[in-house]
Amino acid sequence: MPAGPIITLTTDFGDRDHFVGVLKGVILNINPDAVLVDINHQVHSYDIFDGAFTLAQSYLYFPSDTIHLVVVDPGVGSARRPILARAGKHIFVAPDNGVLSLVYDREESVEVRHVTADHYFLHPISNTFHGRDIFAPVAAWLSRGVEVEKFGGAITDFTKFVAPRVKREGGNQVKGVAIKVDKFGNLITNIRPGDVPELFTENPPRFRIVINQHEVTALHSSFAMGQPSEIFAIVGSSGFLEIGANRGSAAKALNAGRGVEVGIVWGE
Amino acid sequence: MPAGPIITLTTDFGDRDHFVGVLKGVILNINPDAVLVDINHQVHSYDIFDGAFTLAQSYLYFPSDTIHLVVVDPGVGSARRPILARAGKHIFVAPDNGVLSLVYDREESVEVRHVTADHYFLHPISNTFHGRDIFAPVAAWLSRGVEVEKFGGAITDFTKFVAPRVKREGGNQVKGVAIKVDKFGNLITNIRPGDVPELFTENPPRFRIVINQHEVTALHSSFAMGQPSEIFAIVGSSGFLEIGANRGSAAKALNAGRGVEVGIVWGE
Amino acid sequence: MPAGPIITLTTDFGDRDHFVGVLKGVILNINPDAVLVDINHQVHSYDIFDGAFTLAQSYLYFPSDTIHLVVVDPGVGSARRPILARAGKHIFVAPDNGVLSLVYDREESVEVRHVTADHYFLHPISNTFHGRDIFAPVAAWLSRGVEVEKFGGAITDFTKFVAPRVKREGGNQVKGVAIKVDKFGNLITNIRPGDVPELFTENPPRFRIVINQHEVTALHSSFAMGQPSEIFAIVGSSGFLEIGANRGSAAKALNAGRGVEVGIVWGE
Repeated sequence: MPAGPIITLTTDFGDRDHFVGVLKGVILNINPDAVLVDINHQVHSYDIFDGAFTLAQSYLYFPSDTIHLVVVDPGVGSARRPILARAGKHIFVAPDNGVLSLVYDREESVEVRHVTADHYFLHPISNTFHGRDIFAPVAAWLSRGVEVEKFGGAITDFTKFVAPRVKREGGNQVKGVAIKVDKFGNLITNIRPGDVPELFTENPPRFRIVINQHEVTALHSSFAMGQPSEIFAIVGSSGFLEIGANRGSAAKALNAGRGVEVGIVWGE
Repeated sequence: MPAGPIITLTTDFGDRDHFVGVLKGVILNINPDAVLVDINHQVHSYDIFDGAFTLAQSYLYFPSDTIHLVVVDPGVGSARRPILARAGKHIFVAPDNGVLSLVYDREESVEVRHVTADHYFLHPISNTFHGRDIFAPVAAWLSRGVEVEKFGGAITDFTKFVAPRVKREGGNQVKGVAIKVDKFGNLITNIRPGDVPELFTENPPRFRIVINQHEVTALHSSFAMGQPSEIFAIVGSSGFLEIGANRGSAAKALNAGRGVEVGIVWGE
Repeated sequence: MPAGPIITLTTDFGDRDHFVGVLKGVILNINPDAVLVDINHQVHSYDIFDGAFTLAQSYLYFPSDTIHLVVVDPGVGSARRPILARAGKHIFVAPDNGVLSLVYDREESVEVRHVTADHYFLHPISNTFHGRDIFAPVAAWLSRGVEVEKFGGAITDFTKFVAPRVKREGGNQVKGVAIKVDKFGNLITNIRPGDVPELFTENPPRFRIVINQHEVTALHSSFAMGQPSEIFAIVGSSGFLEIGANRGSAAKALNAGRGVEVGIVWGE
């Protein structure tokens, strides 16, 4: 007995309204066998990068052929296109606003289609809730085995944003940025160990991580190694450098949030 | 292979406790094949209208024969009756406190039963958690195919509240009310386009929407049409007039919440 | 057609990140037939007792052989062991930090194993997200029928905390503590009716419940019996004495939270 096809949901709809329930109703009405899995509905409102990051951190853990429905859609009702993408072993349904950028970055094989076959949509199509009227039905019909070609033609001019890059300055500095604050108050930066290999040698030099005029000088390999109230760096579960605390909020201690500059200097 | 029967859940239990998990355990213990779908557990505490609105906005999107479990139950432990209703193509299990009122309004065929067959309940029955002890087991047994007649006799004196009505005043005014603030800060009113057809003609007159001494004078057909910081009216996805903003919170800008009066005057 | 094996999830991961979605992806990638049920992801951060309480209030309502995955893990990356426990008719996967203590208390038959078979883990194993790399995969493989013996040897020195006890003082006093504030603002104490049988006789004496210098003198059998703004005691759905209000927050009215002392004096 094969399990039903998996559809994941990532939105900025929050949890205080009927919106997510409606998406699920629409999908199950088209395909009662679909297995629905919430990834996160608390993406920051209208925040395409936050949606992209959430998706990029999770989709690879799902089985091949999972359908990922992403509705972070500040341009609903405008001309932005609904798209579906086959990228690597996964399928994505989303608005063409860049929310799939980090997937495009990661996968070698990417095929994007402009979804135009409106007989798969829910009619009448509103101008304010394409999640319900366009994206959910398309995901549901995909899960029933309709071929991707049926939904519309391939496009190459899809929207892709450039993720904030780490800048190397001189021989002993890098500058990055905090891209996320997680529930525990950890600041996730865009800096990977590969960006500062000097810090990951056997005998690393002294270094300072500067955030909001605070300095962090410790690098631990687990949260449990942190002393009470100590703020330290750690390579987090996403492979990025994080600024954290053992059972405390680094973001609060540093009065820092997403977007804050994170500088590292070593060997002074 | 048919998918299992769908049971949706709408409660004011929030997400910080074990309550929702317990409902699901009780249901799955009776019917492991049930497919459980959360609609919303953040209904305002004890707020029957908010529960009714959530349900009314979502149930129709689910497949026929879906069982909708609704537990917003400020009178738990009092004499209010547990009921089940077959309304249109859906089945509802709820306390008889009016939380199904908007379903009764919408459906032509409504049959309500007082659930008295307590051998379907979880014993001992507490006075404080009928969701666990009465409503969830009844929904689970229904999903196993027990006929509605087995649960109790039909009643006609079930509780129904009257939804706030839009008042027409003179030839060029209507007065309504905000019935919901959604996650994005949109004020959903109880006014439908049909209540103010004058505004939806080809050449509509100038109009003012008055809320908390603020005036809104634009009507857009999509959020994307709104200028930065502009507050405007829009027909939302529920078919009601909403007061919104493009990537901003109208509720915050107008310092307005649920229950605020919404007046429209035109042709002055 | 048998339904798939149930795996429940209880964590302190919150709902603003990708963490829970990742757990589900990992599980479904190993066992697409698993039926995933959220119990609560809003356990207070790092709060082992809160996790233990959530679990203890819910697991018994699930069918036999349900697998309960619990990730409240302040010691991630330290030497604390991953364990699996067969207790009564249920199976648990968790860190060995005491989060299963209330299960151990309740069940007569308890068998705990140190999970060492790391070929079931997700590699490379991070130091910061054992939920993803260890606990979720173990739960998933268990759900596929791998015998518990395969994961590691039995241990008897597992961690167990002692739940806060009710103290009897003299012949007419007990002292307990609030162990939880629920979503409605009810203070759930650790006092059971059996700790103060005097109050549950046919003609109970007058009594005072003292919390933060406030006195509560009523004991109701349902919330609906409470007068507006009255604060009263009630035996809640968990079998503990709660301090509540009818449609209001007792915690707010008493300015009290988890950990506050709850004294009862009677027959003065």
